[in-house]
Amino acid sequence: MSPSTPEKPRTGWRTRLHEVIFEADTAAGKAFDIGLIASILLSVTTVMLESVPSIRTGYGDVLTRIEWFFTILFTIEYLLRLVSVEKPLRYTTSFFGFVDILALLPTYLSLFLPGTQYLFTIRILRLLRVFRILKLSEYLSEASTLMGALHASRRKISVFILTVLLLVVIIGSMMYIVEGEEHGFDSIPTSIYWAIVTLTTVGYGDLSPQTPLGKTLASLVMIMGYGIIAVPTGIVTAELSQVALKSKQVTSQACPNCSQYGHDADALFCKYCGSHL
Amino acid sequence: MSPSTPEKPRTGWRTRLHEVIFEADTAAGKAFDIGLIASILLSVTTVMLESVPSIRTGYGDVLTRIEWFFTILFTIEYLLRLVSVEKPLRYTTSFFGFVDILALLPTYLSLFLPGTQYLFTIRILRLLRVFRILKLSEYLSEASTLMGALHASRRKISVFILTVLLLVVIIGSMMYIVEGEEHGFDSIPTSIYWAIVTLTTVGYGDLSPQTPLGKTLASLVMIMGYGIIAVPTGIVTAELSQVALKSKQVTSQACPNCSQYGHDADALFCKYCGSHL
Amino acid sequence: MSPSTPEKPRTGWRTRLHEVIFEADTAAGKAFDIGLIASILLSVTTVMLESVPSIRTGYGDVLTRIEWFFTILFTIEYLLRLVSVEKPLRYTTSFFGFVDILALLPTYLSLFLPGTQYLFTIRILRLLRVFRILKLSEYLSEASTLMGALHASRRKISVFILTVLLLVVIIGSMMYIVEGEEHGFDSIPTSIYWAIVTLTTVGYGDLSPQTPLGKTLASLVMIMGYGIIAVPTGIVTAELSQVALKSKQVTSQACPNCSQYGHDADALFCKYCGSHL
Amino acid sequence: MSPSTPEKPRTGWRTRLHEVIFEADTAAGKAFDIGLIASILLSVTTVMLESVPSIRTGYGDVLTRIEWFFTILFTIEYLLRLVSVEKPLRYTTSFFGFVDILALLPTYLSLFLPGTQYLFTIRILRLLRVFRILKLSEYLSEASTLMGALHASRRKISVFILTVLLLVVIIGSMMYIVEGEEHGFDSIPTSIYWAIVTLTTVGYGDLSPQTPLGKTLASLVMIMGYGIIAVPTGIVTAELSQVALKSKQVTSQACPNCSQYGHDADALFCKYCGSHL
Repeated sequence: MSPSTPEKPRTGWRTRLHEVIFEADTAAGKAFDIGLIASILLSVTTVMLESVPSIRTGYGDVLTRIEWFFTILFTIEYLLRLVSVEKPLRYTTSFFGFVDILALLPTYLSLFLPGTQYLFTIRILRLLRVFRILKLSEYLSEASTLMGALHASRRKISVFILTVLLLVVIIGSMMYIVEGEEHGFDSIPTSIYWAIVTLTTVGYGDLSPQTPLGKTLASLVMIMGYGIIAVPTGIVTAELSQVALKSKQVTSQACPNCSQYGHDADALFCKYCGSHL
Repeated sequence: MSPSTPEKPRTGWRTRLHEVIFEADTAAGKAFDIGLIASILLSVTTVMLESVPSIRTGYGDVLTRIEWFFTILFTIEYLLRLVSVEKPLRYTTSFFGFVDILALLPTYLSLFLPGTQYLFTIRILRLLRVFRILKLSEYLSEASTLMGALHASRRKISVFILTVLLLVVIIGSMMYIVEGEEHGFDSIPTSIYWAIVTLTTVGYGDLSPQTPLGKTLASLVMIMGYGIIAVPTGIVTAELSQVALKSKQVTSQACPNCSQYGHDADALFCKYCGSHL
Repeated sequence: MSPSTPEKPRTGWRTRLHEVIFEADTAAGKAFDIGLIASILLSVTTVMLESVPSIRTGYGDVLTRIEWFFTILFTIEYLLRLVSVEKPLRYTTSFFGFVDILALLPTYLSLFLPGTQYLFTIRILRLLRVFRILKLSEYLSEASTLMGALHASRRKISVFILTVLLLVVIIGSMMYIVEGEEHGFDSIPTSIYWAIVTLTTVGYGDLSPQTPLGKTLASLVMIMGYGIIAVPTGIVTAELSQVALKSKQVTSQACPNCSQYGHDADALFCKYCGSHL
Repeated sequence: MSPSTPEKPRTGWRTRLHEVIFEADTAAGKAFDIGLIASILLSVTTVMLESVPSIRTGYGDVLTRIEWFFTILFTIEYLLRLVSVEKPLRYTTSFFGFVDILALLPTYLSLFLPGTQYLFTIRILRLLRVFRILKLSEYLSEASTLMGALHASRRKISVFILTVLLLVVIIGSMMYIVEGEEHGFDSIPTSIYWAIVTLTTVGYGDLSPQTPLGKTLASLVMIMGYGIIAVPTGIVTAELSQVALKSKQVTSQACPNCSQYGHDADALFCKYCGSHL
C-alpha cells in the first residue's frame, strides 16, 4: 500500500478482488461464484457421506482430509472477503458475514468436541448468498412476495401459534391423566409432544392412545386439527391473493398532474389530486 | 371501612388494588401482570416436571411444595380480585373468573384424588387474561379477525363436521366387516377411530388394513380424504379473503358530488368525477 | 276404503299420516321426527356396542333383541311411509326410499349371513332425511353452497384424481423394483397402496422404505405430495371464493324493464336490456 | 409404393390407417381407441397380478404369456404408427412416441434383466394419449387451467422447494447430532429423510425422536411444518383464484359508446351508459 492512500484505499487489486468475490458481472466474478456453489455442495456432501457408518469405516480418513481442505479454502475466502470490503467490522456483523463464520466454526470446534463437524452442513446456508449474487432477480422478487405475505400475516400467525401452544398443553395434560404411564404417556411433556404430533397430522404412531376414552379424546383432537390446519393455510392464501389482487387491479398509469401511482383500472380522475387521468 | 361508605365503596385502597390487579396502565399494574405471567409459567412448568418419573423420584417433595406455594399464591390473588371488584358475584360467573377457580381446584382436589394435580396445567389458560390486560390490542384485533372468520363460517363447518361423522361411522363399519378382529379392527368404535385417524391424514399406524380388500377400501378413503381436507381450508380461506377484501379495499364513503361508492381508503378525490371527498 | 275414492284417495287418515311422517310443521310431526332421530341414534349405538367383544359376551342377547326391536319398528315405519304416499313405487326408487330399505336389510340378511348386521350402521344415513324434514334450512343452504362448489369443480377434481392414479401406479411399480419383497413391498398393488398412503400424507408406517435409494425416491414423492395436496385445496377454495364473490358483488336489484337479476353493484343500466336501473 | 409417389406419399390405406390410429372421428377410429384403452388397462393389470407372489406361483406362466401377447400387440401398433405418420423420425422423438417406446422396452429388457418387466406399468402413461385422442376437450381445458396455474407459479414453487431443501439439510444434521445412531438416526442422509417425512406431515414413525431434546426439536419442526405446508396451498389457490377471476367475471370488450371496460361475459348492454355492446 502506497502512503498516498490513507485508511483502506480502494486500490486497484482490492477493487478487483471485491468485484470477483462479491459481484457476478464480470467473467471472473461469475466463475468464482460457480466455483463457490460447487465447493459448498461438495463440502456438504462430504460431511453427509462421513456420517454414514459404512462409508466412514472405509473412507473416514479421506473424507476428513477433504473436509479440512474445504474448511481451509473457506477460511482463505473469508479472509479475502474481509480484506476486500471497505468496512470489515460491519461485514462480520452482517447476516451473511455471520453465516460465513458459522460455516467455518464446526470443523475447528471438532478438534475439541468430536461430532460438531456435522454442524458443518450449516454452510449450506451460504448458498443463499450465492443465489443473491447470481442476480436471480426474478426468483428473488417471488421470494420477497412470499416473505411479504408471511410478514404481513405475522401477527395472525403469532396468535395462531400461541393458541396452538395453549391447546397442546391442555390436551397433553388430559391425555396424560387418561392414558397414563402404562400406555407410553409417561409424562406431561411427552403427552404434549404427542398432542403436537397429532394436531399437525404428522402421526408417527410411536405413541397412540390405547384406552377407549383416550381414543375418543384423540378423535376429537384430530377433528379439531382439521379446522386448525386450515387456519395458517387460510392466512397465507388470503395474504397472497391480496398481493396478487393489489398488483393486478391497479393500473401502472401515473397521474399526469401529481405523478402518483396506484390508480384503479376504472378510475377517471386521480384519487390524490383530483385531476383527470 | 368507614360508616360513610355504604355497600362496597370504592375506597382508596380498593381502587388502587383494582388498578394494580385488573389494569396495566400504572407501573405497579404492569409489574403485577408480569409477575403473574412468570408465576403461571413457573407453576405450569413445575407440574410438568413433576409428571416426569425420573424427576419426581428425585425432587418430588420440592416440586409438590412449589406447587402448593403457587396454589396458595393464586388463592390469595383470587381473594384479592374478589375484594377489589364491585360485584364479586358477577366476576365469579364471568369467563375469566371461572378459569381462575378452575386453575385452583386441581391442587386442592389432589388431596382427595391423587393425580388430579396434573389438571393444574389448565391454569395456562389464565395467560389469556394477562395478554388481554397487557393491551396487546393489535394482536387481539387479529385474533378477533380469525375468530370472526371462524364464526361466520360456523354453519358451513357444522355441516362439514356432521358429514365427516356420518362418513366415519359408515367407513368404520365397513372396515370392521372387511378386516375383522384378527387384524386389530376389533369393534366398530375402534374402526371408527381408525377411519378418523385416516381421513384426517394423521395415520398413526397402530391400526392398518392387512387384507387386499381392506387396503383397497383404505386407499379410496385416503383419496376421498384429499378432497375432504380441502373443504375446511377452503371455507376458512374464502372467509378470510372476504374479510381482507372488505376491510382493505374500499371505504363506505360516498362521493358528495356524484354519490358513487367504492373509493379506496387513501383516496382524497372521487375517482369517477374528480371532486373532493 | 270407501268405493267413492278410486285409486289411492288422500283420505283423512292418510293425509294426516303423511303430515306426521313426512312433514314437521305440526306438533305430532315434530314429535315423530325427534323420536325417529332418537331411534336411529339408539339403534346405531346398539350395533356399535354389540361389535365390542367384551360387551357382546355379557349382553349379546339383550343387544340382539334391541336390534330386532328397532328393525321391526323401522319396518313398520317403512310400511306406513308406503301407505301414506300417493305413489309408493316412485318413493321406493327415490334416494331416501333406497336408504330406508338399505337400513332394514342388514338385520334380515344376518339370519342367513352372520356378520352383516354390522352394516346396520348404514341407517345412520337416514339422519340426512330427518335433518331435511326438520327444515334446518339455513344449514341446508350452506350445505348446498359446499355441494355447489364441489359440483362446479368436478371436472378439475376428475382430472386431478386421474393424475394421482396414474402417478401412484408408476411410483408404486418403481418402489416395488427398488425395495422388493424383503422390505415388505411384496407386490405392485401393495406398493401402490404405499404410494397412496404417502402421497396423501397419511403415512401409517406399516410399510416404509429401507434402502437408501428407496428413501430418496420416497423423499421425492413426499415433496411432490406437498404440491399435489395443494391442488384440491386450491380448487375448492377458488370455487368457494367465487361463490362468495358472486353473491356479494351483485346486488339483489332486478331490472324494472326486463326483471332480470344479477347486476353488479356499480351498474347504472341493465346489462341485458339496456334500460336504466 | 408406385414410382409416382416420391417419399412417403399419403396413399389411401396410409391415410385411413392414420385416421384409425391417430384420430377418433370415425367409428373405426373410436373402436381402435377404446380397444387400446382396454388393452393398456388389461396389460397393466396383468403385470400387477404377476407381481403378487401367491398369484405368480399359480399362474405365472399364463400371465407371462399374456404379457408377451400385449407387448407384441403394442409393438405391431407402434410399427403401424411409424408407417402411418408422414415423418416417423419426428414422431419417435415426440413425447408420446417416447412414451410408446418406453412402454415396450421393459418386457424385452426382462429377457436380460429379470424384474424389469414390472416397469411395464409405465405404459399406463399411454392412457394420456388416448384421452387426448378421445377429445375429452372439456376435461383437457380444466387440465390446462390447472397446468397453467402451476406453470404461472413455477418460480414461487422453485423458491419454496429450495427453501425446504435447505431447511431439511440443517434440521437433519441437528437431529443426527441430538439423537445419534443409537436411536436410528444413523447418518445425516437418514436424518434428512426423517426431516422430510416430518415436514410433509407424512410421519411414518419408522424413525421418531427418543430423547427429550430430540422431541422438543421435532415439535418445533412440526409447528414450523404447519406454516410451510400452507405456502404451496396458498400459491396454487391464489393462482387459481386469479385465473377464475380473469376468465369468468369480465370480458376485455369495451363499450363502443363510452369505452368503459369491465363488462360481464353475458352483458348485452353497457352497464355504465346503457348503449348496445
